[in-house]
Parts: sequence; structure tokens; C-alpha cells
Amino acid sequence: MKCIHLADSREFDPDKFKRFLLHDSPYFRILNFNLAAGQVFPVHSHPADGQLSIQVIEGKGFFLGEGDATIPAGTGDVLISDISAPHGVKAETDMRILVTIAPPF
Amino acid sequence: MKCIHLADSREFDPDKFKRFLLHDSPYFRILNFNLAAGQVFPVHSHPADGQLSIQVIEGKGFFLGEGDATIPAGTGDVLISDISAPHGVKAETDMRILVTIAPPF
Repeated sequence: MKCIHLADSREFDPDKFKRFLLHDSPYFRILNFNLAAGQVFPVHSHPADGQLSIQVIEGKGFFLGEGDATIPAGTGDVLISDISAPHGVKAETDMRILVTIAPPF
Repeated sequence: MKCIHLADSREFDPDKFKRFLLHDSPYFRILNFNLAAGQVFPVHSHPADGQLSIQVIEGKGFFLGEGDATIPAGTGDVLISDISAPHGVKAETDMRILVTIAPPF
């Protein structure tokens, strides 16, 4: 048993979004990314089996997908995506996301 | 790609905690449980490989473990547990938790 406090990684950097690895095991990996207003987590994908969730825990912006796909994303919204499908995030305000990847690749 | 809005399942029941299955795949299962103040998700475990996370998304209470183990749990706290290890939750206020199980069993 291990307890993570999301408040402990609430840091923003105006130059580059921040990345915190919170948990890693053979079963899932949990990361927190903090994007300052206007920052973008570029659309990307990985040739791996599995899925990931992107949960907005603070702020608002957009989930990004293939091509020009954008989905409004605010606190409490969760995107589910295949790891192999294009996915990204754009922050409108300062924005924190929690990403869970299962299984890690 | 699928988007879940956690606000859509914000329901409490004074008689029994509420359970919402938000996502299920071979990779992970995501559930939302809403406990009214005082309600308990009893300590339990399953004889399966894998891990789970229990994230408090609203309110406060305690993570429960083996024996009398209790860990204070508020919004933004996340417990990581083996599926096979005893785990539970007790709500002090109305409390919402997001549970991710990888892999589902």
C-alpha cells in the first residue's frame, strides 16, 4: 500500500510542461502532467497494446486526437484512448492531468 | 476515444454507497463509488494478480487496510494497492472515489 498526494506535485513551468512519475509497476503507470495556460502536450501515439486514461484534475483545455479533433476538457473529464491512437492535450488555463497507462510499454 | 464526465455520476444514496462502472476493457476497469458521510466500503481483497488505485475526487475520509490500518484520505489523495491486499474506504463527509483496476479480474 502506498499513498500519493497529488497536491505534492502541483508545479508549473512557463517554459515546458512538468512531468511527474507517480507510480510504475508491471500493471499500470501513473503520471501527472502540469501544463501552464497555452502549453500543449503534442499529439502522439505508441505502437503498443493497451489503453490509457487522461483525467483533468484541475483547469480546462482540450483533449486532442487525430487530425484536427479537439474535445473540450475540464476538471472531472476523463479521456480513454488506445495507446496506439493519437492523443494529446492543450491547456487553456493552467491545467493538471493524471495519466494512467495499462499496461506500461 | 471516449470521454467520461465524472460530474454525470455524482449521485449519493443514504442507504448504500453508489457504484458506477465507467469503463471496462481487457486493460483496465474504471469505477466511481460515491459514499455518503459515514458510509463504508468494507475492507476486502481478491486472489488476483494486478493493482488498483483509489483516488479521492471529492470529500474526505480514510483509506482502510489490513487490521485496524487507516490512512487519512482527502481530495487528491491516491492509494495504490495490490488487488490481493486488503483495502477499503470510510467516508467522513460525502466522498467520491475513482477506482482503476489493472488488469480487471
